[in-house]
Amino acid sequence: MRIRNLKNAKEILSSSDYLLENPSDYKGKFNELFGNDNPIHLEIGMGKGDYIIGMAREFPNINFIGLERYDSIVARALLKLENCNLPNLKIIKTDAMYLGDVFDKEISRILLNFSDPWPKDRHAKRRLTSSDFLRVYDKLFIGDCEIVQKTDNVLLFESSLVSLSEYGYILKEVSLDLENSGIFNIETEYERKFKNKGFTINYLRVEKKLSK
Amino acid sequence: MRIRNLKNAKEILSSSDYLLENPSDYKGKFNELFGNDNPIHLEIGMGKGDYIIGMAREFPNINFIGLERYDSIVARALLKLENCNLPNLKIIKTDAMYLGDVFDKEISRILLNFSDPWPKDRHAKRRLTSSDFLRVYDKLFIGDCEIVQKTDNVLLFESSLVSLSEYGYILKEVSLDLENSGIFNIETEYERKFKNKGFTINYLRVEKKLSK
Repeated sequence: MRIRNLKNAKEILSSSDYLLENPSDYKGKFNELFGNDNPIHLEIGMGKGDYIIGMAREFPNINFIGLERYDSIVARALLKLENCNLPNLKIIKTDAMYLGDVFDKEISRILLNFSDPWPKDRHAKRRLTSSDFLRVYDKLFIGDCEIVQKTDNVLLFESSLVSLSEYGYILKEVSLDLENSGIFNIETEYERKFKNKGFTINYLRVEKKLSK
Repeated sequence: MRIRNLKNAKEILSSSDYLLENPSDYKGKFNELFGNDNPIHLEIGMGKGDYIIGMAREFPNINFIGLERYDSIVARALLKLENCNLPNLKIIKTDAMYLGDVFDKEISRILLNFSDPWPKDRHAKRRLTSSDFLRVYDKLFIGDCEIVQKTDNVLLFESSLVSLSEYGYILKEVSLDLENSGIFNIETEYERKFKNKGFTINYLRVEKKLSK
């Protein structure tokens, strides 16, 4: 994603109730923060937030947390939330590599939408479905592990399928054309642009039994 | 595949050394038939044989068996073989549902190329990657189980990925564009036609540890 600088990003960040300033304070206690026992779905790399805001609206009985690392992008998502009342949504500004500092056995589902494909072989470990990240995710999940991914990037999709399968995840749903699959979807801004060019979106949902 | 009747099909079938008339006679003894200990790769639904003939030429140290159920199609493959000397290739005319009568713990790899997609849900069990067939394949394999599939059909590909994964197979290779993947390939007649229309071929290779 191209990042345009937002002049007042810092200001927006400091004035929003959706953003958790010190997220590690809630480690292992996110359900307390939400004030309920509903499952928590975590989107890693939420971008401008279209997806997670849409999901939070659509599913009030699920708690959503959106993760994004860039100030300007987080600020754009927060601007969209200014007049929304979504008690089941929180935003965290951090890098995915620090996930283990923020969460502990409390996430039911991880959502990966249009993640950076890191197309070069030597960067494969940086993909959010590399075994390095899957090992981090293991510590986040409560109950069985579930990951949902959508991407236009064929290389990332192929790589994810193999990596997830080799790590022990079982494929529960796959689509090479999400729009015509009948699977529930909330489109992101990026997705609409891409779709309008005539490309299809690849989708997968995988599960793994929690290893004790 | 559209099947055009071949008038002298029966005659061609009865006069070819490549066709095994009573294949179940060799059950458990196919390596004896080939006269070596090389691995045996089985193509289920070989069609007119382009792929398996090409593979047998390319890999003389692998034994290949092509399975096809229709007289006219088998005959067309046998015609192509008339002036070939391929001691590592045999053809069997039977239906995939009778595989368990023909083979016993002797196949190293199953090849599925452009199999019938059986697109209707109520026919899903007839797909060659349905759990019903995977159970049959279990009895065929010697050592670890390996299946390689290529198909233009998106629905079949999606269905195969889920079915194989749920059955315990691990994805080792996936491509949504076989031609540009760098994976070794021999094109079938069908594949060339399809590719010339601008479509891509989906490919997967999966493995499963042999259950004792």
